[in-house]
Amino acid sequence: MSGKRACVAVVGASGTVGGALIKQIQAQAGTLESILGSQLRVVGVANTKNMLVSADGVDDHWREKLKTRGPDGAEVNLRSFGQQVATAASAAVSCGIIVDCSASEAVPCLYTEWMHMGLHIVTPNKKFGAGPLPRYHELKQLATKTKRQFMYEATVGAGLPIISTLKGLLETGDRVTKIEGILSGTLSYIFNTYRAGMDVARKVVILARECGVQVELDTLVLESLVPEPLVGLDVDEFMAKLPEYDGYMAQRASAAEAANQVVRYVGSVDVVAGKAAIKVASYDRDHPFAQLGGSDNIVVFETERYKSPLIVRGPGAGTEVTAAGVFFDIIQIVRSHRSS
Amino acid sequence: MSGKRACVAVVGASGTVGGALIKQIQAQAGTLESILGSQLRVVGVANTKNMLVSADGVDDHWREKLKTRGPDGAEVNLRSFGQQVATAASAAVSCGIIVDCSASEAVPCLYTEWMHMGLHIVTPNKKFGAGPLPRYHELKQLATKTKRQFMYEATVGAGLPIISTLKGLLETGDRVTKIEGILSGTLSYIFNTYRAGMDVARKVVILARECGVQVELDTLVLESLVPEPLVGLDVDEFMAKLPEYDGYMAQRASAAEAANQVVRYVGSVDVVAGKAAIKVASYDRDHPFAQLGGSDNIVVFETERYKSPLIVRGPGAGTEVTAAGVFFDIIQIVRSHRSS
Ligand SMILES: NC(=O)c1ccc[n+]([C@@H]2O[C@H](COP(=O)([O-])OP(=O)(O)OC[C@H]3O[C@@H](n4cnc5c(N)ncnc54)[C@H](OP(=O)(O)O)[C@@H]3O)[C@@H](O)[C@H]2O)c1
Ligand SMILES: NC(=O)c1ccc[n+]([C@@H]2O[C@H](COP(=O)([O-])OP(=O)(O)OC[C@H]3O[C@@H](n4cnc5c(N)ncnc54)[C@H](OP(=O)(O)O)[C@@H]3O)[C@@H](O)[C@H]2O)c1
Repeated sequence: MSGKRACVAVVGASGTVGGALIKQIQAQAGTLESILGSQLRVVGVANTKNMLVSADGVDDHWREKLKTRGPDGAEVNLRSFGQQVATAASAAVSCGIIVDCSASEAVPCLYTEWMHMGLHIVTPNKKFGAGPLPRYHELKQLATKTKRQFMYEATVGAGLPIISTLKGLLETGDRVTKIEGILSGTLSYIFNTYRAGMDVARKVVILARECGVQVELDTLVLESLVPEPLVGLDVDEFMAKLPEYDGYMAQRASAAEAANQVVRYVGSVDVVAGKAAIKVASYDRDHPFAQLGGSDNIVVFETERYKSPLIVRGPGAGTEVTAAGVFFDIIQIVRSHRSS
Repeated sequence: MSGKRACVAVVGASGTVGGALIKQIQAQAGTLESILGSQLRVVGVANTKNMLVSADGVDDHWREKLKTRGPDGAEVNLRSFGQQVATAASAAVSCGIIVDCSASEAVPCLYTEWMHMGLHIVTPNKKFGAGPLPRYHELKQLATKTKRQFMYEATVGAGLPIISTLKGLLETGDRVTKIEGILSGTLSYIFNTYRAGMDVARKVVILARECGVQVELDTLVLESLVPEPLVGLDVDEFMAKLPEYDGYMAQRASAAEAANQVVRYVGSVDVVAGKAAIKVASYDRDHPFAQLGGSDNIVVFETERYKSPLIVRGPGAGTEVTAAGVFFDIIQIVRSHRSS
């Protein structure tokens, strides 16, 4: 054992996923050390109020500290957080990994800077992967150049192996032609729950980009989710008119039921045509999409090498499995630093 | 780019999977170099007749060379093959990966020696993973000690992400309680096709061991596949009597059909009870196991964190997807050598 160390810092440590992740890391650190030959240590925690960095690992009182604002009362400085984590990691001749467990739009603005500091980035936050394309490409290129990783398994399907499977197909040179999936089990009426619809749209954008289909969230949402007459309205008008379209969906659902079918909201990436969308479609009751229950997700990959599709299915949400999806990414990074 | 190199050598290069793998590597090497910053090079090929090792990459005439026996007419010396590959890799300050694309019992006897030479081992050959437990544990321990990897994604479900998913669950500290799956789509009557039954049994053994259930192939086969009156017979007697049991299975199938069910051969690992088996069971037509067609495989993971199971499904055989499963493992190893 070379006694390598991996330094992990969590933004959103007081959140549900962040908190669960830290518990999972601490419970599993001993086992991982024997598998990977690397010590995994949580060296930093932050939330909106405060932050704490310690190269030897944050002590057990970190939860208390994050409950109160720092002495200056200011918003936490995530740039400085990154610098402190990078310093702690390099002092320990170790790899530094920063995990964004927020759902914030602001935190992803720091990823590029953090990577420039030598840190790897892991996140279940979809706001980067489905954010502006130029920023996305910049980080991906920076990752290649600096040999740092940007990992986001948990952004699609939580702990399910969706992104890693897709990467595996692409990296081995298979040609993915189409991806279809139900990416939110709890979602019944997208038009009723615009926010949930956005969440699904973000996942579709992330999958599409992974396949090289260059989509922006706005375009996809407008084309997929917004009823024609609502396009172009401002947010207030939009929200006010939205309920009018509930009827349409309810009607569609009962028509399907009459035909012994069910309506499903399916995320779809047609790689050959270079298009991504969320579509509303009816399926016979014996179709895998129709049989999906609860909060299960399903993703169907069609590729050139696969004669019938490769399918991954299971719960696509939940604190523990989401944290595990994030943890999975962390382990991949640590493994990539183990060899002498 | 540090311009690292990864040296791959293939035993069974003239076989269907080995040949497809080499083509995939050569077609994808450029793309991978830009992703991983490492040059992937096929530095060695071998089959039963001959071998060829060249640090700069084998030339295009390797196929010809492997068609004839070497000058001394002797069996190919795989120990010497490993040494030459290790030398080529260390001369190139590179990682050396030896891929066993045979179905041989003999080749796995070299794995431990090869790893001692500093090589990583990748294989779709089930004969090691389902081979004697002491040898299995020895290699696993050696891998940890020497920071070399032994990878075998394609041994179960070919290119499907089965082993990597299972490893991910376990490494993040989830507790897998049960695995059930159909691991051979083409298999209809195990008692008719004892060899195919052995193949499924090997996959079950590999999955069981991954979960820490210590089974040997012989025990599993005897308990699962061999009709009671045939236990203890020698091979000739056994093969002679086997056809008598076709009737039993056919009867069972038609009884199921009458009840609107289908019979399936399901591999099962009950981690809690510490048991592994292949069982014959009947399923309603809307059960995922009943709906499986063609050469599809399905694996269902039940874990503590997952409230409903995680399921992976798709073609579990085929030259291209099997080669891709092997290639996937190779890429993981190369990635673990990329960081500076
Ligand atoms: N739960 C799931 O099933 C699931 C599945 C897939 C993906 N995800 C994703 O996982 C992420 C976390 O979800 P969650 O349910 O754990 O959220 P949460 O409970 O609301 O926690 C969010 C955490 O982020 C912190 N935070 C927010 N904005 C911040 C900022 N600007 N600077 C620093 N810290 C900030 C919050 O700090 P305060 O405590 O100070 O507010 C809080 O600790 C989200 O992106 C979500 O979409 C969740
Ligand atoms: N095809 C699939 O769908 C699939 C799926 C999962 C796993 N697999 C596994 O993949 C492996 C390869 O399958 P395949 O269909 O490619 O087999 P194959 O076409 O029979 O090729 C086997 C290769 O191994 C070589 N070989 C055998 N014994 C050897 C020895 N003692 N020393 C050196 N070379 C030896 C053979 O050499 P010669 O050319 O000299 O005979 C041949 O090149 C098998 O373990 C199989 O179970 C296959």
